[in-house]
Amino acid sequence: MKQIYIIGMGPGNYEQMTVEAVKKIEESDIVIGYTVYTDLIKNIWPDKNCISTPMTKEYDRCILAFEEADKGKTVALVCSGDAGVYGLAGLMLGISERFKEVKVKIVAGVTAALSGAAIIGAPLIHDFAVISLSDLLTPLEKIEKRLECAAIGDFCICLYNPGSKKRADYLEKACKILLKYKSADTPCAIAKNIGRDKEEYMLYTLNELKDIKVGMFETVFIGNSMTKVIDNKLVTPRGYKNE
Amino acid sequence: MKQIYIIGMGPGNYEQMTVEAVKKIEESDIVIGYTVYTDLIKNIWPDKNCISTPMTKEYDRCILAFEEADKGKTVALVCSGDAGVYGLAGLMLGISERFKEVKVKIVAGVTAALSGAAIIGAPLIHDFAVISLSDLLTPLEKIEKRLECAAIGDFCICLYNPGSKKRADYLEKACKILLKYKSADTPCAIAKNIGRDKEEYMLYTLNELKDIKVGMFETVFIGNSMTKVIDNKLVTPRGYKNE
Repeated sequence: MKQIYIIGMGPGNYEQMTVEAVKKIEESDIVIGYTVYTDLIKNIWPDKNCISTPMTKEYDRCILAFEEADKGKTVALVCSGDAGVYGLAGLMLGISERFKEVKVKIVAGVTAALSGAAIIGAPLIHDFAVISLSDLLTPLEKIEKRLECAAIGDFCICLYNPGSKKRADYLEKACKILLKYKSADTPCAIAKNIGRDKEEYMLYTLNELKDIKVGMFETVFIGNSMTKVIDNKLVTPRGYKNE
Repeated sequence: MKQIYIIGMGPGNYEQMTVEAVKKIEESDIVIGYTVYTDLIKNIWPDKNCISTPMTKEYDRCILAFEEADKGKTVALVCSGDAGVYGLAGLMLGISERFKEVKVKIVAGVTAALSGAAIIGAPLIHDFAVISLSDLLTPLEKIEKRLECAAIGDFCICLYNPGSKKRADYLEKACKILLKYKSADTPCAIAKNIGRDKEEYMLYTLNELKDIKVGMFETVFIGNSMTKVIDNKLVTPRGYKNE
């Protein structure tokens, strides 16, 4: 059978993969992914046949997956977190129209909003918005509009791709927008290296967060108006009524 | 050691639990949860010592978990999906202040937004908002405000608790708010019985969605302005620029 599994690996360690992700990787003849993730696969399954492609070549990676599957191989395309959240699941489904004989199955994984939240406490217990600060494929004005809407709606907020060398001041920009609508004391947190060596988290107020420098390995959490710090953890109540 | 694991089980089948969730349940002396989830545990581990409490007794369930752990037992408190998304992680961290000797660890799981998305395609590829339509603990005006903000921000939207007997018209109310800002043709989907027998999904336009009756086992997905139906799947592109 010509089969591709699009697999969300979770934060990167074996323990946080789903049982299904493990099984499907083990069933696959070939694993395709960005180098960082195929390296993780090699650590767990040293004999697994892996092909890695550079980070920016997502489209080529997807085509390669279909071409290999079309030869009759069972292919695992691996992504960090969940393939359906800023991942390759959508691109793959778009391409799948051209490879009608290849079956595609998406295997859900634990995205950084969830794995990061579990480290820093319970910041996303109530309604939340997930926003990427990367403007590679999205106009900055659109991102800024979403930050504004998330703040006005008093959503808990999780920011993906909060910064990079080119986007050194994007978290600051984001915080300044949020500060127009949210208290400067709003509890916030950064989770770093989730599920890897040197996993850690730091707590800030929203006002402090705006001056923090972040990179590729950070996920940022911003509380809603009810979020509190309890015993050094960020905790959002389940609602607005007394529990 | 006095230890509690707060475990997100994912949608409910063994395959979609994380390896860590499986290990921690196996390590635990006792599993505590709502009846539906302890029944799932019993299916997988027939000899496991389980205590189930009714759905509305969340606070009592949390206290029970701490009391059992305080006796020296290793306790797994299980939730569906992820314990950090409308789950008990926050309530537990609040109570943990009173049981200083009990260690608490949150084990992240695959929440319905992710497991549902994987079935219906790739609806949450880009920025998204997760909103519960349950007004048990949240004033309805707050929920309506959030729906409005999510629509104005052109977020992909995932609705939890979209309906119940008492809230039979809440999805209709929600769709009417969204229709003020979003096209009536916006592709939408409902995922039902995720990870269980009779798992299925249905596609609708936003205008059609408003007339659909939903219950406890449905999760609703609403596209952003770029979301398309491709080969009977809901697919949101990774951004607003051409790929």
